[in-house]
Amino acid sequence: MAGKKYLFTPGPTPVPPQVLAAQAAPIVHHRSPDFRPIYESCLTRLREVCRTERDVLLYTASGTGAFESAVANLVSPGEPHLVVSAGNFGERWATMTAGYGADVDHLRYEWGETPDPEDVRARLGEREAKAVWIVHSETSTGVVSDIQAIAAVAKEAGALTVVDAVSSLGAVRCETDAWGLDVVVSGSQKALMTPPGLGLCAVSEAALAATGTSPRFYFDWERTRKAQAKLDAAFTPSVSLVAGLDVALGLLLEEGLEAVLDRHIRLGRACRAGAKAMGLELFSPDEDRSAVVTAIRAPEGVSSDDVVKGLRDRFGMTIANGQGSLKGTIFRLGHIGWFDVFDITAQLGAVELLLTDLGADIERGVAVTAALEAYEHAPVADTGTA
Amino acid sequence: MAGKKYLFTPGPTPVPPQVLAAQAAPIVHHRSPDFRPIYESCLTRLREVCRTERDVLLYTASGTGAFESAVANLVSPGEPHLVVSAGNFGERWATMTAGYGADVDHLRYEWGETPDPEDVRARLGEREAKAVWIVHSETSTGVVSDIQAIAAVAKEAGALTVVDAVSSLGAVRCETDAWGLDVVVSGSQKALMTPPGLGLCAVSEAALAATGTSPRFYFDWERTRKAQAKLDAAFTPSVSLVAGLDVALGLLLEEGLEAVLDRHIRLGRACRAGAKAMGLELFSPDEDRSAVVTAIRAPEGVSSDDVVKGLRDRFGMTIANGQGSLKGTIFRLGHIGWFDVFDITAQLGAVELLLTDLGADIERGVAVTAALEAYEHAPVADTGTA
Repeated sequence: MAGKKYLFTPGPTPVPPQVLAAQAAPIVHHRSPDFRPIYESCLTRLREVCRTERDVLLYTASGTGAFESAVANLVSPGEPHLVVSAGNFGERWATMTAGYGADVDHLRYEWGETPDPEDVRARLGEREAKAVWIVHSETSTGVVSDIQAIAAVAKEAGALTVVDAVSSLGAVRCETDAWGLDVVVSGSQKALMTPPGLGLCAVSEAALAATGTSPRFYFDWERTRKAQAKLDAAFTPSVSLVAGLDVALGLLLEEGLEAVLDRHIRLGRACRAGAKAMGLELFSPDEDRSAVVTAIRAPEGVSSDDVVKGLRDRFGMTIANGQGSLKGTIFRLGHIGWFDVFDITAQLGAVELLLTDLGADIERGVAVTAALEAYEHAPVADTGTA
Repeated sequence: MAGKKYLFTPGPTPVPPQVLAAQAAPIVHHRSPDFRPIYESCLTRLREVCRTERDVLLYTASGTGAFESAVANLVSPGEPHLVVSAGNFGERWATMTAGYGADVDHLRYEWGETPDPEDVRARLGEREAKAVWIVHSETSTGVVSDIQAIAAVAKEAGALTVVDAVSSLGAVRCETDAWGLDVVVSGSQKALMTPPGLGLCAVSEAALAATGTSPRFYFDWERTRKAQAKLDAAFTPSVSLVAGLDVALGLLLEEGLEAVLDRHIRLGRACRAGAKAMGLELFSPDEDRSAVVTAIRAPEGVSSDDVVKGLRDRFGMTIANGQGSLKGTIFRLGHIGWFDVFDITAQLGAVELLLTDLGADIERGVAVTAALEAYEHAPVADTGTA
């Protein structure tokens, strides 16, 4: 259909019409009574979604910017830090912390592997670290780490835990306070169903007390914390995006955080069930934690470049290719945020048609039903992460 | 009238409906063909408005964030820098450069004074500096500096010039290339008629070649420059704001940059003429360069707090109070961006009514006409900055 388009990437993600409408409201001044109630509501709802009593610091920046706030505030040159990576984003944080002069112990897994808390324990036993840096959902591979276990190991060793929850917050359980996560970073454009442009950072008292000497101004935690405590902003915030985020968080909390997490688990199950029914091989693990994005190997003889391009040209669907060396090898179907099961079946139906035309040896006519069944008939017994 | 509101601050500023409508468009992926033409158009138009052939680096951040990119890239610890300040923002840049370890020579004027290029020459004669940091339009006072002359003095002394053009770009002439401005920083939410959330930075080859050792990632010029050269973005940009900025820049260039600058000069004249006709004393200089915001002293016996509050409570108008020690003493009427003369007369009419009720000794019935005449009957002979 001419012009009908579908955004199925794991960020930016589709934004509900109510949130888009909020973007189009006239601009208000960030220090006026027109904005303060929106700001207060947004900050309160963020705490609820982050499952924390702490302040959640809000930055006009991408998720990478908010993550850099953690690096700029916590890393002083020469300090030992342990960075765990198993994909593109983990490797970015290793580069960033090293760029700030950290003495980085890099626990590097192959892309697609799942970090093992016991490996973290062993590394921390060999060398102490001020903080352990871990990606919750590695968007490049679809792997979701067991951050609860890793944070527990870090705590035992006296290290802070810094979590990249950019693509997971609001999709996969992240109990900031209960699990003792010192820093949780996320962004507006993933499961929080808002356009890109806002980053956030929930920071524990211990982390605030551990700030170091690296130069920083825009990303200085204390400057933003002090301003937010007065319902002010240290710098002109993106008032439109804050208004949109407030609406989006309202939708999320109206559905209920537990229901939202449950929906994401079932969306992941549906996507994997459909792909497997078609005869495709999963790249991301086939487990309930894989609730953000499903990475699938392109079948024998097909490049994922052609899958991405074909979906786009024929059906107006934007999905994600593999990143780095996985480009051409895997494709990634997103399912965070404003998704229901019919967004999954649309992707599966289109993939089925396209792969058939590309000559792949796949099973036809079963994926959509398998997805619908997995979504409806697999009640989530435990809404935990495992 | 219930609910009708007016935003008259010098940032954020009112946003045209076409730009707001662009904010509400469905989200597109930043690496898709849906976004690239918008991105390319926006970057091209930015060069045109900045009067430069260089790349204009675009950041998802406030103007302060974009300014920090200049500090993080140019300042290495211990280097000599000359920071010129005459108000709130200049002082912020002195703090920021010092925070990055610069050995700062701070040429500090009282708030409301106009920096003198000869003072800059004298300081550079006493001590060399890697760069001169200067605010074009000091939004806290309404003073606009003669950056052409200051850049010439800096060049003679072998120093780079870094200009904070956050509230001036698109309102006051800023000839980036012709005047040899090495770095020009601005933001989306002032004369560029876009919601807050985007910062930009035009950087010369000389500045790119002079980058230093301070740690940086999100604000690293080279990372963003390389990405933009491929029409990519180093980090997920705020696609909605970029789309809005593109529309706003299109409106600006359709009116014509010269016509826009001329309109701002006449808006400033109109605002000052109206205030003076009422018998009010100007705080900002009564000259054509004062085209961004008109700072006015609250009359004898009246606090500007009551002016700001009264305009808001009675008429739904948001204007700016004085900042810092000027709070309570001056109020500021904005006129950058999507303003015509009737936005000036609305402010003057409301101020006239309110001050009368507050018991101020002012002349009634003349301000609006004086403003209209100044706007219409004072052709701008020279659209230069003086």
